[in-house]
Amino acid sequence: MRLLLTIQYKGTNFCGWQIQPNCRTVQQTLSDAIFEVTGENVTLHASGRTDAGVHALGQRVHFDSNTKIPPEKLPFALNTNLPDDLKVIACEQVSYDFDARFNVKRKTYVYKFYSSPHENPMLFDGYAHLPIVPDYQKMRAAADVIEGEHDFKCCQATGGHVKTTVRTVYSIDIKKDGEIYEIAVTGNGFLYNMVRIIAGTIYYAGIGRISEDDIKSAFLTNDRTKMGITLEAKGLYLVKVMY
Amino acid sequence: MRLLLTIQYKGTNFCGWQIQPNCRTVQQTLSDAIFEVTGENVTLHASGRTDAGVHALGQRVHFDSNTKIPPEKLPFALNTNLPDDLKVIACEQVSYDFDARFNVKRKTYVYKFYSSPHENPMLFDGYAHLPIVPDYQKMRAAADVIEGEHDFKCCQATGGHVKTTVRTVYSIDIKKDGEIYEIAVTGNGFLYNMVRIIAGTIYYAGIGRISEDDIKSAFLTNDRTKMGITLEAKGLYLVKVMY
Repeated sequence: MRLLLTIQYKGTNFCGWQIQPNCRTVQQTLSDAIFEVTGENVTLHASGRTDAGVHALGQRVHFDSNTKIPPEKLPFALNTNLPDDLKVIACEQVSYDFDARFNVKRKTYVYKFYSSPHENPMLFDGYAHLPIVPDYQKMRAAADVIEGEHDFKCCQATGGHVKTTVRTVYSIDIKKDGEIYEIAVTGNGFLYNMVRIIAGTIYYAGIGRISEDDIKSAFLTNDRTKMGITLEAKGLYLVKVMY
Repeated sequence: MRLLLTIQYKGTNFCGWQIQPNCRTVQQTLSDAIFEVTGENVTLHASGRTDAGVHALGQRVHFDSNTKIPPEKLPFALNTNLPDDLKVIACEQVSYDFDARFNVKRKTYVYKFYSSPHENPMLFDGYAHLPIVPDYQKMRAAADVIEGEHDFKCCQATGGHVKTTVRTVYSIDIKKDGEIYEIAVTGNGFLYNMVRIIAGTIYYAGIGRISEDDIKSAFLTNDRTKMGITLEAKGLYLVKVMY
């Protein structure tokens, strides 16, 4: 049968999702736990890779298995074999034509940061620290420009190789709670570092470093330098994958 | 001059506040940073010790110094010499008769936990994981019994040595946000492990393991066994010290 897992991880001490030599990865750690529980060496297919330091609250992963353990029991069995920073929160059976990567319709990422004069020891591995306080309305106005269908070539780090750089951002929600800001971005697909660049662009607009016109111009000219900085991986969360 | 610092720390990788050999402590780490910045070997006086694993969002510490650095600049100088998990967020000059420990009028601690079937990798070092979902009204009713002046001998771990075990708990606030619960306890003083036992008692009442009458009886008979368990250190935060 084909099983679809929902997993959570704290990215701080992982070299990202994908298996690589001499480095602790989510894929390898989860594979090892599945081997411990089922005796099977499975190939795991995630909805997408996440980089080193990036967290996940709702990553989805499929694999094929002949285990006799019922899907609803499997998370408990796996979690006793998983470390504190990686857990399985759900498992369901899906049909063999389902693919965790190719069937994705939408994803939601959240970027978290806080603006205080000093760093906060409780937040250092899950939030970027951006001391200059942004203006909420300016951030909102920048987000309004970014929402929609665009050629997001100006929001891509080098290293991506894709057929088309046109993507649709369905919504950008910005929450503020005291010094903490959360920017939630939902789209039909994301280029390499796209969310971290979108969040950096919204923040730069919020502190007056770039204008709405800069962003419009970046989209028209594909000019990465007109957008904001790429914010650190540690503030990024893959929150939800929708099929 | 005498200086009063407000400091924050994530307790996970500290053996608590107090200096001890062969173990990383908050007191030693902060002393070292003050030496780096001022060249002075100072004695630090905290509002109280915190145990290994306990966090602080508003610990207060006084010391005497002849530094020429203005108090409002000192946090920035110290923070460049402090690790990610310990930061100074404020500094003010106080008179020589002020003592960070003996002048305390009230303290607020918060105990944080979450109730979900599986552990959450983002919460593992700052929250207790208590899978059985408690009933809010039962927790509130237990808190109502605990609020006020009592002999808290039944809420004390062995190892404490104090003149009197009578304390006043001014308020207990219980917040629920989805699966996350925060129990804030404000009092004029706390015995060893008292907040962790209060939080464990409120939780045990919430899941029906003990009743309000058990708590009343514990206060009358000084019987520790009638109260709930001592919850883990990792969910405890020293939030505020009032003078």
